[in-house]
Amino acid sequence: MKIVISGLGIIGGSYAKAIKKYTEHTVIGINRSKEPIELALECGAIDREGTAEDLRDADMLILGTYPKAAVEFIEKNGEYINKDCIVTDTCGIKSEICGNMVNLSDKFGFTFVGTHPMAGKEVNGFSASDADLFQGASCIIVPCKAKRKSVEAVTNFVTSIGFTQTPVVTPKVHDRMIAFTSQLPHALACAYVLSPVCRNHKGFSAGSYRDVSRVAKINAELWTELFLENKAPLLSELDTLIDNLSRIRNSIANEDGQSLYRQLKAGRTVKEELNE
Amino acid sequence: MKIVISGLGIIGGSYAKAIKKYTEHTVIGINRSKEPIELALECGAIDREGTAEDLRDADMLILGTYPKAAVEFIEKNGEYINKDCIVTDTCGIKSEICGNMVNLSDKFGFTFVGTHPMAGKEVNGFSASDADLFQGASCIIVPCKAKRKSVEAVTNFVTSIGFTQTPVVTPKVHDRMIAFTSQLPHALACAYVLSPVCRNHKGFSAGSYRDVSRVAKINAELWTELFLENKAPLLSELDTLIDNLSRIRNSIANEDGQSLYRQLKAGRTVKEELNE
Repeated sequence: MKIVISGLGIIGGSYAKAIKKYTEHTVIGINRSKEPIELALECGAIDREGTAEDLRDADMLILGTYPKAAVEFIEKNGEYINKDCIVTDTCGIKSEICGNMVNLSDKFGFTFVGTHPMAGKEVNGFSASDADLFQGASCIIVPCKAKRKSVEAVTNFVTSIGFTQTPVVTPKVHDRMIAFTSQLPHALACAYVLSPVCRNHKGFSAGSYRDVSRVAKINAELWTELFLENKAPLLSELDTLIDNLSRIRNSIANEDGQSLYRQLKAGRTVKEELNE
Repeated sequence: MKIVISGLGIIGGSYAKAIKKYTEHTVIGINRSKEPIELALECGAIDREGTAEDLRDADMLILGTYPKAAVEFIEKNGEYINKDCIVTDTCGIKSEICGNMVNLSDKFGFTFVGTHPMAGKEVNGFSASDADLFQGASCIIVPCKAKRKSVEAVTNFVTSIGFTQTPVVTPKVHDRMIAFTSQLPHALACAYVLSPVCRNHKGFSAGSYRDVSRVAKINAELWTELFLENKAPLLSELDTLIDNLSRIRNSIANEDGQSLYRQLKAGRTVKEELNE
């Protein structure tokens, strides 16, 4: 395949590296700034730099940018995309982008299959990309209006570069799950490290501090966009968490050991039943 | 030294194994149930099972039990402890136990130096113990009324079995720090996994889910006791966290991107300034 990747940050860059490492496909890179292109050429992550003209005979276009930039790229360059090309994004929230992309695919004639690679790091940019970032990870597939054949093609493609789970869901289900599994921990990590005690934690902390605070090293611009695009599901999860924390808080305030024990035990039971 | 360890769970058992692996000291084990004693004898973690009589010529007594059981052990056996013996606990909360232990050391004549080994796992019991559990970890030292010589002896001892940081603080400072670094993440993990969405997370989750939820596999009985013993500092941290989460929540509800960005950025700044 001839694969065009727009946006060579950590995710787009890792796609490029993984494709070159694990497949025979040709990779063409497009990026607003020049440095990632130069780095990608240097290490062989892309075969060459491309332009919108490359979309005329590309088999796949991977959008590695933020949601809004992904939509803008298609609005601007949709006319170059051939009708057999599969366009996929890598965005963390699906309802909004899928709505936009389905409209754009109707307008320009390409096929859109949303994907969300469940992998990342607390660092960003091409220099953080890694050919093995996706090994063993889940890639959530959001077909929207795509035909089964295109969904299979995307599933086979992501499996070929290391993903081992490929659940297929609607945008709505995706966004509800991600509000809990990914967005809430990021909001939480930021809220947590804003305690005035945090700055003095060294010598008094171990694994539980490290794990909760890790993702506070957040890309604030990206996550502000993602949080606002997933308002309703994320608010629902935040409210549930604040409720659960308040219930634990009140048990402690009332020195109600039985109620506190029941809540902690309920948490343990969930983890046990999930075999984690 | 002749070291008596009362309570061979994951912590007491790891002390026993580490002492036998890294020092020449003799280790005597005391445990309510027989199985941990048998396992410890089998793998050479203790030299033999002991009784309160062993305290007549012991150089150190390590209390590996829950806070209340540790105090009860001294109330019951304090008369056997010789005046040159250093008694140390391993409890996660210090104000309450240190008050009790200082009174008991006045009564019986031994020296008490509180310690809190900042290490653990999500599993419990002697079978989870590990000679290298403390490698590179912090052991917080809470001298209470102990003389400098005894504090140095305890510091040298814990360093000899693998700890690399040994901050010395008052019970009050200890408890305020631990409320944030350890208790809050445990409360949080339980509150988090109680979301109804959690049971379906597989295929939709990655590192951030794994890290926040990890310690929900909690020893509910132990942590209920620890939370209630540290009521004021833990309530303060829970209130701070609930406030910070509510502020993020309200920015999302109001679609106030600037305020949301500022809060996420503030979280990132804390982590950056800590070089984490």
